[in-house]
Amino acid sequence: MSFLSHLECSRCHATHDADRIQNLCSCGSPLLVRYDLKAAARAVRPADLAGRISSLWRYRELLPVRNPDNIVSLGEGMTPLLPLPRLGAELGLRDLWLKDESHNPTATFKARGATTGVSRAKELGITSLAMPTNGNAGGAWASYGARAGISVTLIMPTDAPAMSVLEASAVGANAYMVRGQITDAAAIVSRSVKAHGWFESATFKEPYRTEGKKTMGYEIAEQLGWSLPDVILYPTGGGIGLIGIYKGLQELRELGWLPDTVRFPKLVVVQAEGCQPIVKAFHEGKEVAEKWENASTVAQGIRVPKALGDYQVLRAVRETGGTCIAVPDEDTLWGLERISRLEGTFICPEGAALVAAARLLLRQGWLQPDQRVLMLNTGAGIKYPDVLAPKLPILELSATL
Amino acid sequence: MSFLSHLECSRCHATHDADRIQNLCSCGSPLLVRYDLKAAARAVRPADLAGRISSLWRYRELLPVRNPDNIVSLGEGMTPLLPLPRLGAELGLRDLWLKDESHNPTATFKARGATTGVSRAKELGITSLAMPTNGNAGGAWASYGARAGISVTLIMPTDAPAMSVLEASAVGANAYMVRGQITDAAAIVSRSVKAHGWFESATFKEPYRTEGKKTMGYEIAEQLGWSLPDVILYPTGGGIGLIGIYKGLQELRELGWLPDTVRFPKLVVVQAEGCQPIVKAFHEGKEVAEKWENASTVAQGIRVPKALGDYQVLRAVRETGGTCIAVPDEDTLWGLERISRLEGTFICPEGAALVAAARLLLRQGWLQPDQRVLMLNTGAGIKYPDVLAPKLPILELSATL
Repeated sequence: MSFLSHLECSRCHATHDADRIQNLCSCGSPLLVRYDLKAAARAVRPADLAGRISSLWRYRELLPVRNPDNIVSLGEGMTPLLPLPRLGAELGLRDLWLKDESHNPTATFKARGATTGVSRAKELGITSLAMPTNGNAGGAWASYGARAGISVTLIMPTDAPAMSVLEASAVGANAYMVRGQITDAAAIVSRSVKAHGWFESATFKEPYRTEGKKTMGYEIAEQLGWSLPDVILYPTGGGIGLIGIYKGLQELRELGWLPDTVRFPKLVVVQAEGCQPIVKAFHEGKEVAEKWENASTVAQGIRVPKALGDYQVLRAVRETGGTCIAVPDEDTLWGLERISRLEGTFICPEGAALVAAARLLLRQGWLQPDQRVLMLNTGAGIKYPDVLAPKLPILELSATL
Repeated sequence: MSFLSHLECSRCHATHDADRIQNLCSCGSPLLVRYDLKAAARAVRPADLAGRISSLWRYRELLPVRNPDNIVSLGEGMTPLLPLPRLGAELGLRDLWLKDESHNPTATFKARGATTGVSRAKELGITSLAMPTNGNAGGAWASYGARAGISVTLIMPTDAPAMSVLEASAVGANAYMVRGQITDAAAIVSRSVKAHGWFESATFKEPYRTEGKKTMGYEIAEQLGWSLPDVILYPTGGGIGLIGIYKGLQELRELGWLPDTVRFPKLVVVQAEGCQPIVKAFHEGKEVAEKWENASTVAQGIRVPKALGDYQVLRAVRETGGTCIAVPDEDTLWGLERISRLEGTFICPEGAALVAAARLLLRQGWLQPDQRVLMLNTGAGIKYPDVLAPKLPILELSATL
């Protein structure tokens, strides 16, 4: 079933046993999951996928679960890839697409990381895990944990989105808040896991969530008939999604599923003006980002002042000839209004930041009107009900419009 | 592409031209969409579906759009069919399943009716439509209308779920409220469409939404390898979904895609104690339901005091040997807690009513522990944030759990 081979440090390249519980490498860096891709390429071909389940588990040979009984699934992945002709016409982009992750369980892409992370935790015998969260990852991990019968403890900032709090509570997570940023929540988690022997499943501190997220890259290629867009715009908080997409595309290349003539897309990091550590590091030519102080943005999912894997994000952007760009919140809200009204897709603010970024990059001449541009929307607008606050007129019972 | 043939009255069986704009039959009853199923059976086989798009439009020959350019899609359908082993064990059902419609655009099954209804409206040249809604249907039609460039006017009760109001507003619908029930909103719509020449797309008054909903039946059969469950529990408001599933299964039979040895599932109407017109009519042996006065339930989507197609629902239940059952809101909330905590699926109250109904039907001996029972969850729990109101403990920055 799975061609899982071992874990490899993303920085020092040391190898680690995948069948033991692991967090970071001894050098302090995140671990990547490696497969025997040569054997996988002999065992499965793209045409074999056609009749398989409409979920990311259709790629099971390239995912880290050895025994299918350990798969904890709520039907995640195989989200739609939608053309955006009306928004594209308004922006001046003739071949604009949206990969819409709001269709996942818990209505965000976080379900992808949770299905592989929790499945592998179950397979390795973990019964309790804990993590800090800005909200959506917590809701997802709580849901998959509930389905697996694994106890989940979450700590989130007090301004975490109410919908994530609701979702985590509904499925019975042990959820707490802290007056601070996700980095403050992370510190409490790190101390607490030691005291209780819980598994620490914070972003980058566990190796398997990236595997779920890389399937966004697999799906984009499969849905485009094993071709790729010219550019992918990605709303970047921790950046695991972008790292995952890049890893996925590299694996497809090695598998021989992407012909050599298909060029990799330029990967574009989109952050908010109020929290743009990776954009700053990129333009300063640095390999690692500094912590962003007083981080603030309407797009709460990308309010990550410092991410452990930022150097992997910067590497992916540079290796693909991409760029990094920050947008002000007011432009994000403009983008939300335009994509919602023109395409009927009420997306999350993180995704809406991409609309603003596309406009800006086109004005700067970095994007060309004929390029195939894919925006990766990470979640549903209804998870952020406070962003808009509509008031409807009330009619009399006898009214006629 | 489509084997659309004509429209047929669900009561008097008069035929109508499908290529003209139609509402009700001249006898006042809803119209059903008919196809040349013999020709369709020659043109397409179940095996042809395997490589197709993961959306309900994979069944395009059996859907009412003639020109694919008129398809208005947000990636709806092909929602997951999830086994529920932990909830099943608690209830005493050994083969319990959830068809989870929360993965659709706008997070409810209403997207299915909207994609076929709006696509066909576009194909027939409609540029403005209006409808009453309890909330979710309005959000869906507003979204598909926006994507099609069709103007959508909605009227909903003042206690419609805030998330639907948000969604409809975000995509730019002309949305209004009225202090009353959906039947009051419907009266205003009926008067207003005449004044403005809008198309009236109220449930049952337009023929095409049932076509999207019937694909729930198609998908259940395809996902179970062209077999069927023994029982389907369905949360019933207007009942179009149940009528659609039954119509879909009848079409599959006629196409020869379901072997004669596969028995139809018993269809079970689940309503709330506070609004159970169809349950009452069923137990009184009546063919048509009376309007339910002072309708009230936490499951707002099934608060429909009187539905135009109730006789079709009652017919489907009786023809399949099903039953009708009402559950109190407190049992619905119990069901919501149990399915969320045991399976990680935070579903809507309408879906949670099915958990309560399953328990009751099992206690009554109507359900057997070994039957394959499928619950059709119509939407996501996050669309009803007021049903639960969690409060999380706040930790100090220096805390350790």
